[in-house]
Amino acid sequence: MSTDTSTASSNLLTLNVALGERSYPIVIGPGLIGDGERLAASLAGRQVMVVTNDSVAEHYLERLTSSLPDSLEVRTLILPDGEVHKTFASVERIWDALLEAGFNRRSSLVALGGGVIGDMVGFAAACYQRGIDFIQVPTTLLSQVDSSVGGKTGVNHPLGKNMIGAFWQPRAVLIDTDALTTLPSRELSSGLAEVIKYGLIHDQCFLEWLEREMSGLRELNTELLARAIERSCAIKAEIVAADETEQGVRALLNLGHTFGHAIEAYMGYGRWLHGEAVAVGMVMAADLSQRLGWIDAAAVERTRRIIAAAGLPVEAPAEMSVDDFLARMKLDKKNLDSRLRLVLIRSIGAACVHDEAPLEMLKSCIAEFPRR
Amino acid sequence: MSTDTSTASSNLLTLNVALGERSYPIVIGPGLIGDGERLAASLAGRQVMVVTNDSVAEHYLERLTSSLPDSLEVRTLILPDGEVHKTFASVERIWDALLEAGFNRRSSLVALGGGVIGDMVGFAAACYQRGIDFIQVPTTLLSQVDSSVGGKTGVNHPLGKNMIGAFWQPRAVLIDTDALTTLPSRELSSGLAEVIKYGLIHDQCFLEWLEREMSGLRELNTELLARAIERSCAIKAEIVAADETEQGVRALLNLGHTFGHAIEAYMGYGRWLHGEAVAVGMVMAADLSQRLGWIDAAAVERTRRIIAAAGLPVEAPAEMSVDDFLARMKLDKKNLDSRLRLVLIRSIGAACVHDEAPLEMLKSCIAEFPRR
Repeated sequence: MSTDTSTASSNLLTLNVALGERSYPIVIGPGLIGDGERLAASLAGRQVMVVTNDSVAEHYLERLTSSLPDSLEVRTLILPDGEVHKTFASVERIWDALLEAGFNRRSSLVALGGGVIGDMVGFAAACYQRGIDFIQVPTTLLSQVDSSVGGKTGVNHPLGKNMIGAFWQPRAVLIDTDALTTLPSRELSSGLAEVIKYGLIHDQCFLEWLEREMSGLRELNTELLARAIERSCAIKAEIVAADETEQGVRALLNLGHTFGHAIEAYMGYGRWLHGEAVAVGMVMAADLSQRLGWIDAAAVERTRRIIAAAGLPVEAPAEMSVDDFLARMKLDKKNLDSRLRLVLIRSIGAACVHDEAPLEMLKSCIAEFPRR
Repeated sequence: MSTDTSTASSNLLTLNVALGERSYPIVIGPGLIGDGERLAASLAGRQVMVVTNDSVAEHYLERLTSSLPDSLEVRTLILPDGEVHKTFASVERIWDALLEAGFNRRSSLVALGGGVIGDMVGFAAACYQRGIDFIQVPTTLLSQVDSSVGGKTGVNHPLGKNMIGAFWQPRAVLIDTDALTTLPSRELSSGLAEVIKYGLIHDQCFLEWLEREMSGLRELNTELLARAIERSCAIKAEIVAADETEQGVRALLNLGHTFGHAIEAYMGYGRWLHGEAVAVGMVMAADLSQRLGWIDAAAVERTRRIIAAAGLPVEAPAEMSVDDFLARMKLDKKNLDSRLRLVLIRSIGAACVHDEAPLEMLKSCIAEFPRR
């Protein structure tokens, strides 16, 4: 596992997302939520609004706000927790609060929470007065390794997940590994799905490391977690720097997501965690890759085993028919002019985008996939 | 009046907005609404949705859609007319329609209408699946010379005009001068306010030309109108190319807008036309510039006279007190960290951004300004 893109400074690891004038640092380590001086150093103006949800607020909001310098004008906004609240109504509450506070174009938002908070706060920042700064302080493993990095922001629509949003990069990502100590184990597993994804699409050595260290990761060994987060973010940063707005290679980050989004949409957002749906989706993508003759049964089984070892589901919902999947896969943003494009596995550690899997093969893959 | 940035082809004038990979053409002339082949040439995919309002639809929707090539999948959406409908609810209707039609990331929106339609459709494009293409087909003079060029998109919020939005550039702007034949004269005057603005901030010769030709412009001489539109767009394109996201010089385009927005917000969006409010705002800015000793009484009178000659108001609403103005001017996006920044007139043909006008001077300016 390479760490040569990072620098250490007192327990902290720092990566850079290279996007020209929109470049920003990712800082990883313990104690960052209480490091208000570091956060303040990323602010352009003196008005800052910290947005979080009720669950995260209980543990971390006071720790963050009390550490901020007195020179700042600090407001807080607490939204209800959960993917079902990843809606326009929530984003409008942020805009209302900013306007009521009289916050101007140089004000900043801070997203303190998981992916739902990060995506919504990022989108609120992208569109408030045509764009203000924001800082990601992700508190779940899923958001630390995935959604907080790369600038994808947005909300769900009844007809599709993340259908409304913007590309808007944060000014900094501060990943406090201490936050994982209060994370429910189901949420931890959901984050591990994305960690495993990076191994599958880009780094076979990292996947092998994950296979060895999975039990330590699930037991919250913070040093192992920091290394897993660092490697995941480094891979994501490399891919985002190469293709910020997903014209090409960035699509590889969606391994398992087309199947996964169909599961989330059918089951109703929030009942399956995002990582759980993506986990099953990755096994389905491996299955389809085998049907195309790219990988063998052992590679599919290896994919299934590491996902199961992370405490994640490897079977699709019993109630979903082939048509239930297909209807929801067609609307996925990755499908250009109605051709169904899927991220598949070329070999363990290398993914590709493919749009020529025969429809009958896809149907068989879904129909014959294990259910629970 | 310089025309060296434009090229003529048949009766059409073409300008370029130079923004690197986001550059786009502005085409000006008669018959463009019915030139579907030209519009289609700017589309990336084959799915296109034309969004307009009920008033414009009556005159131009069929003309536009019937001219589009059969190879396209064309949908239409008709929204209610008026600034009061420049809301999130309207933008959500566009997103709903796109999702119900199954439109993907390569689909395009066409904004057929005035500034309200253009701003909303641009914003809908900016945020649909994190950004799709759109084309501006402005049908009012105001939108032809101002809002259709430059990529400012957005909607109003009860607490402020254009408070929610994005910078999102169109792929092309097609300005059909024939559309002005159905424009009410009050709307024509509103557009002339922005035309006059370009002369005041950037081009004394253009202002002199406007002083000579104002009656012909108001009588809808199409050749004069095309020249006025071309020069206005050329000035705007030059300023936008230098400062796309309004970090500096682009703010000059807001001459009269801080006062004007206060009038619009107080009176309720839509009761005063945008250009009418800006017109009074420009006279107020000239008045304040004189109080600062930058221009003489003759320059203020010259400003007042050309605005009156365009059929625009030169007096503020009688019901607005000094505090009514100040309360609504503070929320303007141009005010950084609560300092009141105003665009003022250095000399006729040259504007500047100024944030040190004494508050007492500003209050006197507002208090003593003519009311009606």
